[in-house]
Amino acid sequence: MTLRRDLLLSQAKLSRENHLEIIREKHNQIPSIMKENGIECWLIFIRETEANPDPIMDLVIGGDVVWESAFIFNSNKNIFSKGAIVGNFDAPAEREKGIWDEVIPYKEGIAEPLRKYLDKINPHNIALNYSEDDVVSDGLSHGMFLKISNILKDKKERFISAAPIIQAIRGRKTKTEIKLITNTCKLTEEINRTITSKLKVGLSEPEIQRLFHQEMDRLGVVEAWQRASCPAVDAGPDKELGHIGPSPQFTTQKGHTLHNDFGIKLRGYCSDLQRMWFFGTEPPTELIHAFETVRDAILKAADYIKPGVTGYSVDNIAREYVKSRGYEEYAHALGHQVGTKAHDGGVILGPLWERYGDTPKGFVEESNIFTLELNVKTKNFGTVSLEENIVITKDGCEFLVPPQKKFILIK
Amino acid sequence: MTLRRDLLLSQAKLSRENHLEIIREKHNQIPSIMKENGIECWLIFIRETEANPDPIMDLVIGGDVVWESAFIFNSNKNIFSKGAIVGNFDAPAEREKGIWDEVIPYKEGIAEPLRKYLDKINPHNIALNYSEDDVVSDGLSHGMFLKISNILKDKKERFISAAPIIQAIRGRKTKTEIKLITNTCKLTEEINRTITSKLKVGLSEPEIQRLFHQEMDRLGVVEAWQRASCPAVDAGPDKELGHIGPSPQFTTQKGHTLHNDFGIKLRGYCSDLQRMWFFGTEPPTELIHAFETVRDAILKAADYIKPGVTGYSVDNIAREYVKSRGYEEYAHALGHQVGTKAHDGGVILGPLWERYGDTPKGFVEESNIFTLELNVKTKNFGTVSLEENIVITKDGCEFLVPPQKKFILIK
Repeated sequence: MTLRRDLLLSQAKLSRENHLEIIREKHNQIPSIMKENGIECWLIFIRETEANPDPIMDLVIGGDVVWESAFIFNSNKNIFSKGAIVGNFDAPAEREKGIWDEVIPYKEGIAEPLRKYLDKINPHNIALNYSEDDVVSDGLSHGMFLKISNILKDKKERFISAAPIIQAIRGRKTKTEIKLITNTCKLTEEINRTITSKLKVGLSEPEIQRLFHQEMDRLGVVEAWQRASCPAVDAGPDKELGHIGPSPQFTTQKGHTLHNDFGIKLRGYCSDLQRMWFFGTEPPTELIHAFETVRDAILKAADYIKPGVTGYSVDNIAREYVKSRGYEEYAHALGHQVGTKAHDGGVILGPLWERYGDTPKGFVEESNIFTLELNVKTKNFGTVSLEENIVITKDGCEFLVPPQKKFILIK
Repeated sequence: MTLRRDLLLSQAKLSRENHLEIIREKHNQIPSIMKENGIECWLIFIRETEANPDPIMDLVIGGDVVWESAFIFNSNKNIFSKGAIVGNFDAPAEREKGIWDEVIPYKEGIAEPLRKYLDKINPHNIALNYSEDDVVSDGLSHGMFLKISNILKDKKERFISAAPIIQAIRGRKTKTEIKLITNTCKLTEEINRTITSKLKVGLSEPEIQRLFHQEMDRLGVVEAWQRASCPAVDAGPDKELGHIGPSPQFTTQKGHTLHNDFGIKLRGYCSDLQRMWFFGTEPPTELIHAFETVRDAILKAADYIKPGVTGYSVDNIAREYVKSRGYEEYAHALGHQVGTKAHDGGVILGPLWERYGDTPKGFVEESNIFTLELNVKTKNFGTVSLEENIVITKDGCEFLVPPQKKFILIK
């Protein structure tokens, strides 16, 4: 028992070595991504990342810094170089990683060594981590933006958004990453199956969530988003779906559905799946019609998606199908990318609504990993909602685990 | 065994109820803090906080949001009100907390409801979470700053930094918070004592760190900063202190020291302590001189500190004493605040160096919790470094746990 637990705990976290391996794979992607986007210098400017991390750190830096730090990828004059300017206490850790061409420590302030470095490489543009539309490309705080604008006063008109670089780095999963996310999805489904065997009429939503948490703790895996709503557990026709936690007033009942929205993090990579159960032997026609609508909307979108199509065009396939079946359209995007974050940023498979900004206008690329998820509301049985995870292949997509085809029946 | 583990695991996390209780205590502080600082409106603008959180969220919101969300504290016209404008899926969770006067859900975009809200309250100034100097007051990303500047075009000249509010909210610990942090420090010392009984000559730094991690796992508590360097473990004269992890090349040896820098997080609140051991019965005079210098510099600073003094004046007491004893001055600040983060922002007890910006110029307040920490280098025995945690009282300070008075001897 102790051994097994230790074994699984060791699987739950990405080892330092594997983490550095992924960072090296990502660093290898950077020169061509910068070139594609015409970017000469990418500057990551961070501090006290324990308190305020930049979402891209995990993939290209790996580990925290305390003092103000600048990590600079430079491809000016066709020479690619990578420098780290960090406080003297942070320098040993950066040197030890062996991923930087140069580690420059400072004692009193970063301004002078940073200015000197930028004067030397003198790039035509400097990409910084900000984006109005994409949260994971928006790791630069406004205070740090003011600071860098002041330090690099003479170069601040050269600042541009690093979002295209970050989105490509996050979105183009390496083989290692695809394998890790597939494994996470498989274990998520294993947990779903384990809990299925424990489901019965009369359980409250918090009781069901507790079953999931106990199983996660036993396996030593953590939730992909806040534990209070991971998994989300929704029982019966009266529960309003959303990012709300389970409520004791809702219990499983014969003739009702159960829904969860569940993701775990295993070795640093997330899953994000929704599944549905029905308590009884034969779901009513109304529920089956809704279920098939959701399932087929997802399958139709999966059939359509491939490298080169826009995000909104994929959403539109599913959205139009849902409407053609007589349901109100779902109030969110069809899909988001999944990676080290459950919501991994970049291109969204979503409608052209203000809230999504330009993200649905981007193009789907090979090796992207997306969710396909949507819900429809029935008149008498509440909401039916499913979510699958797919990886984009050369000319289509593959489901990371088999999509749900019908209600899981609890007899 | 299982029961004991469960018991401690339940202590390790702050319960939902206790968390909301602290948030209510913090909300009660806000009206007078806003008044003191002449701020009429405080606007927290966040999104996808799972991927990119604002450090102040834990203390005044409590829980994540997905879509763009605005949390508005308004004290215009002497009426205090608190509003939340959030996506429709996030609204149920905010309503359930019962801490907002008004929860306004939206579907397509936040711009219109947010503009409407601000037009209604029409404040003279709008404080946003950005700061060049203070990381925990700098939760607004630059992309979100561009976005809010665009949404509130006609009011953007009224934007000011919310740093004074955030620093006061974080810094003025409530009774509940002081109790929680004291408990965390006590458990940290308990772990130090447990590991002391297991120390012997010939252990490598990673082996010693593993002992700490095993004990933390057994107790179900988590590290206060990244696990790779929590605790930092430094053995013998040749180890360079810093934020680097333990290295197998350094082992404990007779006649050498061992140092750790260790903090845990218990029920949401951190500790941050440094302790020193000596392997042998009698440390050499050189080490004792260094130890007493560090210890007494901390005691002298503790003797001096009280509400109303500046941060840099406290640092100066310790720094001058260290120099007067013939050592090189330490290359960092004497102290930082501790709270939900190990580095809790606000006033720093530090020198007036560029790196610390204006933070050492602030005033120490009652109920602040600070570290007092510094190191000196010896010629033959490496670095001697200690760190204590204090709470500021009405006219002085108290140590949260007794300060270390001499080397812990491993005979």
